[in-house]
Amino acid sequence: MPEVVALGEAMLRLTPPNYRRLEQADCFEVEVGGAELNTAVGLVRLGRAVAWVSRLPDQPLGRLVLNRARAAGVDVSAVQLTPGGRVGLYFLEQGAAPRPGSIIYDRHDSAMAQLRPGQFDWPSLFASARWFHVTGITPALSSSASEAVREALHAARSAGLTVSMDVNYRAKLWSLEQARRWLQEATHCVDVLITGEGGEQLLGVEPGPFEQTARQLCERFGLRAVAMTQREAPLVWRNRLSALAYAADGDRVFTTASYEIEVVDRLGAGDAFAAGLIDGLLANDPQRGLDQATALAALKHTVPGDLPWLDRADLDAAMQAARAGGSLRLNR
Amino acid sequence: MPEVVALGEAMLRLTPPNYRRLEQADCFEVEVGGAELNTAVGLVRLGRAVAWVSRLPDQPLGRLVLNRARAAGVDVSAVQLTPGGRVGLYFLEQGAAPRPGSIIYDRHDSAMAQLRPGQFDWPSLFASARWFHVTGITPALSSSASEAVREALHAARSAGLTVSMDVNYRAKLWSLEQARRWLQEATHCVDVLITGEGGEQLLGVEPGPFEQTARQLCERFGLRAVAMTQREAPLVWRNRLSALAYAADGDRVFTTASYEIEVVDRLGAGDAFAAGLIDGLLANDPQRGLDQATALAALKHTVPGDLPWLDRADLDAAMQAARAGGSLRLNR
Amino acid sequence: MPEVVALGEAMLRLTPPNYRRLEQADCFEVEVGGAELNTAVGLVRLGRAVAWVSRLPDQPLGRLVLNRARAAGVDVSAVQLTPGGRVGLYFLEQGAAPRPGSIIYDRHDSAMAQLRPGQFDWPSLFASARWFHVTGITPALSSSASEAVREALHAARSAGLTVSMDVNYRAKLWSLEQARRWLQEATHCVDVLITGEGGEQLLGVEPGPFEQTARQLCERFGLRAVAMTQREAPLVWRNRLSALAYAADGDRVFTTASYEIEVVDRLGAGDAFAAGLIDGLLANDPQRGLDQATALAALKHTVPGDLPWLDRADLDAAMQAARAGGSLRLNR
Amino acid sequence: MPEVVALGEAMLRLTPPNYRRLEQADCFEVEVGGAELNTAVGLVRLGRAVAWVSRLPDQPLGRLVLNRARAAGVDVSAVQLTPGGRVGLYFLEQGAAPRPGSIIYDRHDSAMAQLRPGQFDWPSLFASARWFHVTGITPALSSSASEAVREALHAARSAGLTVSMDVNYRAKLWSLEQARRWLQEATHCVDVLITGEGGEQLLGVEPGPFEQTARQLCERFGLRAVAMTQREAPLVWRNRLSALAYAADGDRVFTTASYEIEVVDRLGAGDAFAAGLIDGLLANDPQRGLDQATALAALKHTVPGDLPWLDRADLDAAMQAARAGGSLRLNR
Amino acid sequence: MPEVVALGEAMLRLTPPNYRRLEQADCFEVEVGGAELNTAVGLVRLGRAVAWVSRLPDQPLGRLVLNRARAAGVDVSAVQLTPGGRVGLYFLEQGAAPRPGSIIYDRHDSAMAQLRPGQFDWPSLFASARWFHVTGITPALSSSASEAVREALHAARSAGLTVSMDVNYRAKLWSLEQARRWLQEATHCVDVLITGEGGEQLLGVEPGPFEQTARQLCERFGLRAVAMTQREAPLVWRNRLSALAYAADGDRVFTTASYEIEVVDRLGAGDAFAAGLIDGLLANDPQRGLDQATALAALKHTVPGDLPWLDRADLDAAMQAARAGGSLRLNR
Amino acid sequence: MPEVVALGEAMLRLTPPNYRRLEQADCFEVEVGGAELNTAVGLVRLGRAVAWVSRLPDQPLGRLVLNRARAAGVDVSAVQLTPGGRVGLYFLEQGAAPRPGSIIYDRHDSAMAQLRPGQFDWPSLFASARWFHVTGITPALSSSASEAVREALHAARSAGLTVSMDVNYRAKLWSLEQARRWLQEATHCVDVLITGEGGEQLLGVEPGPFEQTARQLCERFGLRAVAMTQREAPLVWRNRLSALAYAADGDRVFTTASYEIEVVDRLGAGDAFAAGLIDGLLANDPQRGLDQATALAALKHTVPGDLPWLDRADLDAAMQAARAGGSLRLNR
Repeated sequence: MPEVVALGEAMLRLTPPNYRRLEQADCFEVEVGGAELNTAVGLVRLGRAVAWVSRLPDQPLGRLVLNRARAAGVDVSAVQLTPGGRVGLYFLEQGAAPRPGSIIYDRHDSAMAQLRPGQFDWPSLFASARWFHVTGITPALSSSASEAVREALHAARSAGLTVSMDVNYRAKLWSLEQARRWLQEATHCVDVLITGEGGEQLLGVEPGPFEQTARQLCERFGLRAVAMTQREAPLVWRNRLSALAYAADGDRVFTTASYEIEVVDRLGAGDAFAAGLIDGLLANDPQRGLDQATALAALKHTVPGDLPWLDRADLDAAMQAARAGGSLRLNR
Repeated sequence: MPEVVALGEAMLRLTPPNYRRLEQADCFEVEVGGAELNTAVGLVRLGRAVAWVSRLPDQPLGRLVLNRARAAGVDVSAVQLTPGGRVGLYFLEQGAAPRPGSIIYDRHDSAMAQLRPGQFDWPSLFASARWFHVTGITPALSSSASEAVREALHAARSAGLTVSMDVNYRAKLWSLEQARRWLQEATHCVDVLITGEGGEQLLGVEPGPFEQTARQLCERFGLRAVAMTQREAPLVWRNRLSALAYAADGDRVFTTASYEIEVVDRLGAGDAFAAGLIDGLLANDPQRGLDQATALAALKHTVPGDLPWLDRADLDAAMQAARAGGSLRLNR
Repeated sequence: MPEVVALGEAMLRLTPPNYRRLEQADCFEVEVGGAELNTAVGLVRLGRAVAWVSRLPDQPLGRLVLNRARAAGVDVSAVQLTPGGRVGLYFLEQGAAPRPGSIIYDRHDSAMAQLRPGQFDWPSLFASARWFHVTGITPALSSSASEAVREALHAARSAGLTVSMDVNYRAKLWSLEQARRWLQEATHCVDVLITGEGGEQLLGVEPGPFEQTARQLCERFGLRAVAMTQREAPLVWRNRLSALAYAADGDRVFTTASYEIEVVDRLGAGDAFAAGLIDGLLANDPQRGLDQATALAALKHTVPGDLPWLDRADLDAAMQAARAGGSLRLNR
Repeated sequence: MPEVVALGEAMLRLTPPNYRRLEQADCFEVEVGGAELNTAVGLVRLGRAVAWVSRLPDQPLGRLVLNRARAAGVDVSAVQLTPGGRVGLYFLEQGAAPRPGSIIYDRHDSAMAQLRPGQFDWPSLFASARWFHVTGITPALSSSASEAVREALHAARSAGLTVSMDVNYRAKLWSLEQARRWLQEATHCVDVLITGEGGEQLLGVEPGPFEQTARQLCERFGLRAVAMTQREAPLVWRNRLSALAYAADGDRVFTTASYEIEVVDRLGAGDAFAAGLIDGLLANDPQRGLDQATALAALKHTVPGDLPWLDRADLDAAMQAARAGGSLRLNR
Repeated sequence: MPEVVALGEAMLRLTPPNYRRLEQADCFEVEVGGAELNTAVGLVRLGRAVAWVSRLPDQPLGRLVLNRARAAGVDVSAVQLTPGGRVGLYFLEQGAAPRPGSIIYDRHDSAMAQLRPGQFDWPSLFASARWFHVTGITPALSSSASEAVREALHAARSAGLTVSMDVNYRAKLWSLEQARRWLQEATHCVDVLITGEGGEQLLGVEPGPFEQTARQLCERFGLRAVAMTQREAPLVWRNRLSALAYAADGDRVFTTASYEIEVVDRLGAGDAFAAGLIDGLLANDPQRGLDQATALAALKHTVPGDLPWLDRADLDAAMQAARAGGSLRLNR
Repeated sequence: MPEVVALGEAMLRLTPPNYRRLEQADCFEVEVGGAELNTAVGLVRLGRAVAWVSRLPDQPLGRLVLNRARAAGVDVSAVQLTPGGRVGLYFLEQGAAPRPGSIIYDRHDSAMAQLRPGQFDWPSLFASARWFHVTGITPALSSSASEAVREALHAARSAGLTVSMDVNYRAKLWSLEQARRWLQEATHCVDVLITGEGGEQLLGVEPGPFEQTARQLCERFGLRAVAMTQREAPLVWRNRLSALAYAADGDRVFTTASYEIEVVDRLGAGDAFAAGLIDGLLANDPQRGLDQATALAALKHTVPGDLPWLDRADLDAAMQAARAGGSLRLNR
């Protein structure tokens, strides 16, 4: 019986090895990822039971995606295998300073882009759950998908679940204007908002110091909490990451350690952040939530692929090292 | 100045290595192929100047396809780089007896599927050419594409070019009924028809002995010649290949040697056949055309990827060995 | 709720690529396999709900095995993660005529070799099940493991399940004498016996024509059915496979088609056979069981790794082709 | 019709993957590179039509080199396929601090080392061109090659082309004395000189501040411009790059941004610099020339292989980021 | 005739490529390593004749280990091929900040763990030798192995050899208490002790400044010299390394340069240090010993695998660069 | 102390993986091979002590070759590391019917091609030996090399060694006329001649039935024995191999079993044949010599690379299976 339900698309990710550019590719490594699935996996790795709700075409590539989710321990019993539609693809080009990495999406007409209201029996899916997680990517897939997410958000509210949303604005999927309109309506169904720099503007709030912006967001949309990661990326292979959170209850701001990161694969770091945060909030410990969110996001950079193949032992070791400083010696 | 012009789509081909099934893939080898491009490359390798006419999206994957065509020596100056559209993809699963190989097409909405009449200046493209080659795949891409091929066929006729068409019926792209309607009109613009078993039925001619069927096709559509490959494939890694041709002029049937084949990669064999045939017919030697078509098709099975990385020396050696029998010893 | 329960060890399989010998290895491909897990996967792929019961050490390599089972859709909720013990390993050297392939086991002291009675709550595991499957490999792992299998067999009997056993004698794991003693006792708990050439002698029955041997086995041990594969392997890359079955009820012998096979990976073929057979017997159709057992075993040779990544569509196509003969053409 | 003509050798580059030393190699990645070809590719990527003039043996490895040049869009119609001679090879060992990378040349007796005067019809090759580019590597290949380069330089002058030369002294190919003698004669035919530290001494000019040295070089050899890159490489995977240029006309010195670089592959960076510079000078904009030369050289470090698989969009993004500072975020 | 004899186990090292975690592995790179073998190889590369004494099972994987030692030029004539026992394995997971690398040992019951007194004829093995090297890993393998090392140490003393020991405490192999007991007895047979931070405590000496600790160790155990590396590892891919040594004769402390390191593979760095040190001490030049020990350890980080594929030219270049500072330019 | 001495060149072999043609290569697998080294390795694997005499340049690629020979257990103490000269290279293109494999040699100016008389102290090298082995490849490398082989042959005769020579005519290295002249002189120093079809003509003997030809060769050149392999290769991946031998002493002809072969890598099969034969003749058992020569040659086809990674157990199993017929089942 899942404690957390997440709705979203997962895609095949195709990456030329060894920093080759896409135009130079003679081989693609195949990974599976999608913002909400990544978060679901992170939560499973921390011991939560999580159902991932999605649609995949009933052919080998669809099953490949399904099997990878299953390998990671996610409950896939609600995933629909559809007779038509494509598997969404994205092509990733790894970067190196002074050239940033880049992505080409090829997810048009995917089975999940054909999502529309009425396809899932939300009351039944939410029956045993406590938490529902979405991102701003799914409504950007198609007009019918955006309606279906709205339907799910309302159903989650009705079922009494806590709802988290990661803004995740993707300029290549929809316009600022489209995003703004959908987000400003949908955020009223949200309890916990995760955003990066600029997210507040999409939601009609002026940029400013985090505390002030977060407070305004909570007031305007009835949010319980807002969290934001802060990344310094003057280079591609070396980043620094920290985060901030704000809880409306008590008007409190939380800070956490900052991590020096050697980047193996930065995809899915924000989704790992969401997993760490949700796990902490499920335990009613926002400070631990923010601490482990930041540590999990930092650790995700060291793992190839989109999925956070990390567990609580990794998390505890990293948080302990962040407190204690010192060497990153081989563990033997 | 190209002697031959070929119109068609090229795709990225993605294949899991070492006979893994698509569902097991953790890596895809990247090849580039497309029926008409494959034939164009075969002709270039035999010394002909060939222009390939196509459309590709102006992004890294489109340029990857373009660069591979260019690497093979094909004249790509008429390829249009389009602001939108996808690169067509196909996923190939290699087989082994008793499991045949299989293909998943993912070419919907490709830049080339958006082909429509008026996009290419055919009179100018045909100015210096003697031959135009198409297949039954391009009209199957979309309704506008089928009209554009019709436009090109008429333009080729008007410009006095010899026109060849390989029927290449693909059940996954259009229905038998759609194919029949288009082919039975278009074939009136064709001089040389290449077909496999069953092609005659699409064209409304009863199955029968090759000579009789070929004669009827020539009479009905005003063809000058018909050629057909014959494959025995009781296994997947070992095939036998031979071919037949018929020339309306003189009512002649041509036969050729049959080849025992160890199969590295069977994609593009029929397209290599077309290249060998066209080269021979350009030299007014149908017997040599059929001989080298069959040899080139057989040899293509030994080369990874869709493109026939073979040349006249390979061809002559294989035809000589087919005549002489004997050992396939290492050449050192 | 699983319909079938299977008990056994799964190992990491390490294979040097491209037919390198073990002594030449500079890289190992990592697959996961184990006779009963392979059968479980085959049954899942045919649509059955199957629980795999096993033990794995609670470290990354143990979880790797678990995840692969989970990826294939097997119910792993009964697998125990143990604080100690190793992951069993086996090193596979692929062969080519005249050199057969070879295996080095390194599975001593594995978590599963430490299996002993009382570790699993069989009545509860069998609560909803109809079938229990074991092989002669698990009792060969250690003395305590052989006792634990006996315990499980008796529990299955008590719970009213049908019990199948694949003899699978492994000379590298125990002596003929040890095997004989255990098998001749344990087979009294079995309903369906799967064996190869020589299995009857382990069970104290004289070799002879299949029908006669099978009848004696049924009489002596109270079996309901016996099945046996027949392999012709004068070469390594090309085999021929067929099978026979005998049902005590009605004293009937069943025969089936024989398959010409191009061998990608012959590991797990016998386990795929068991899956096809059990599925048919669950449907009370022994002829279909034998037919699909043989087809699935043949097909498994075309798939890399130990697990049968095949489904009912593959099975139906192969059985249809075996009936109809003809070409193994690319499916496009 | 090429606007720029470049003369030089291209080689197969063989590199053990994953930082293995040459002595540890069990596999070599195959790249194609050569100083002048690298520059030609850089110019093609910026939109210039460039002919590369070279010689390659008429066998598969020679054609491999030719095809890669062709793939990158270079006009190879003037490349001669010779019946004898080898393909030049070089073996590259990647480094890591404190061990620098290293190269073993194996290019003796290559088809291009057999270059001698009279093999190319320079007046015809220069008919439509505006610019001719060479480096100090080709004359170092053999005595006859050094004469042939001299012949080409005089022909370029006669045809009114602007001539650029990159000094590129290679101690493993000829002695300082040989280099000095040839360069001090040949530089009189040059308009634009590209050099690194120490180049001035080869040309008989005392080391000193860049402006002073560059002025002396221009005066002594009648040069129009001198450009020089400046690299800080205290580590191998992280370098800093900037550059300076001097124009005799107006006695001006140009400076540009400096780039922090994460090094994927540093081969061909200097050649990319030349491409950026020539493109700017062809547009009569020396400041832009120097800016984009430095950016292209910096970017080349992020691309595997010798060829600069970069285009104007990459260039503009890097120059913009160098001006604006800030993050190198994933482009999605 | 070997000048140096080293006793110890070598294992197969299995590493997932490209920073994958062990749980994600679908392929393992195969390296061979073991502390004493690594040191032996380092000494061979510096020109010393070295015999490695070990035990390996007589099967392909044992021979694989033997062949790799042989490839590096080590005298393996004293290695015993045993009928039973396993090849020791270890699984390495490469790290990236903030996640350190990690090792899983799977070396229980290896042929070398079955080492016991009386298996080797030490007087004969030491006949021509001047130096004997061991580490604290071998006695940790099993109780009989610890006795056998003691036997060898006494035999070396009797034969008049200089004895070096690297403490190398491995918490995963034995407890602090076991290590302490064995080391405090065995160190009385040692002349040169190599240790890292914390080693002194195992030997019953209070932590303190290096000079003081080293002096106490020499006094207590009758050592001639003590050496210690100092590593700064705030990140995983970038470390700094220096070292100190103390000679009882003259009560002298030696210091050396410190190296900035880009880490390709940090395994075996300490063993390379031992090789550099022993070589210098054999030449009666402790300063050169410490200098080249540190340089060799630093350089080892740049070479994949456990073995130091480096030679005196690499060493001299690195020591020269450490003195001169400056760029790490490509050597061409 | 070596029992057998072999003189010859070893090269790096570069092969594109997965049947790619050389022109398609983007990666080369690196193997080491050379006819005489291959034979030396075969003999070492059968338990003989063998010294390989050769010259290699003193740089990483030369040492790579040396290390591989050393890994296989060959005594390389007589190999000279030369300051100049190249490592010989050859590029191998694997074939598939109807396209045979092919080789491009690039071994001009190699260290071994610079072999000349006086470089090796043959009396000392032959001091403890019983057998000397050469092939017709070394004299084809250069004129000075042919003289040096002559010198070695005379020295071997003087030292009382048995001399074997494998004719191995390579048309790409010297002309028929050059080969004839050298062979007809040198064969007078030979005791055991190994040849294939056509070898007799090089030696001035008319083709005819084996027995007659062999007898004439023995009479004319004073040979003790002649052996010849017979290969049927109508396909590339499937060959049949048998052999014949003739002994002058007793005028006896020996025949042996014929092997059905699945071809992984056919390079070095003839050299493995020589190893099996020499081993048998050293044991004074020509029948066993021929039997194991043929089995070893057949088995070599199943092993990647040029070196016969096989041992007496493989040999005995294959000879036993050839006698008994039957299945090639996985050994587990």
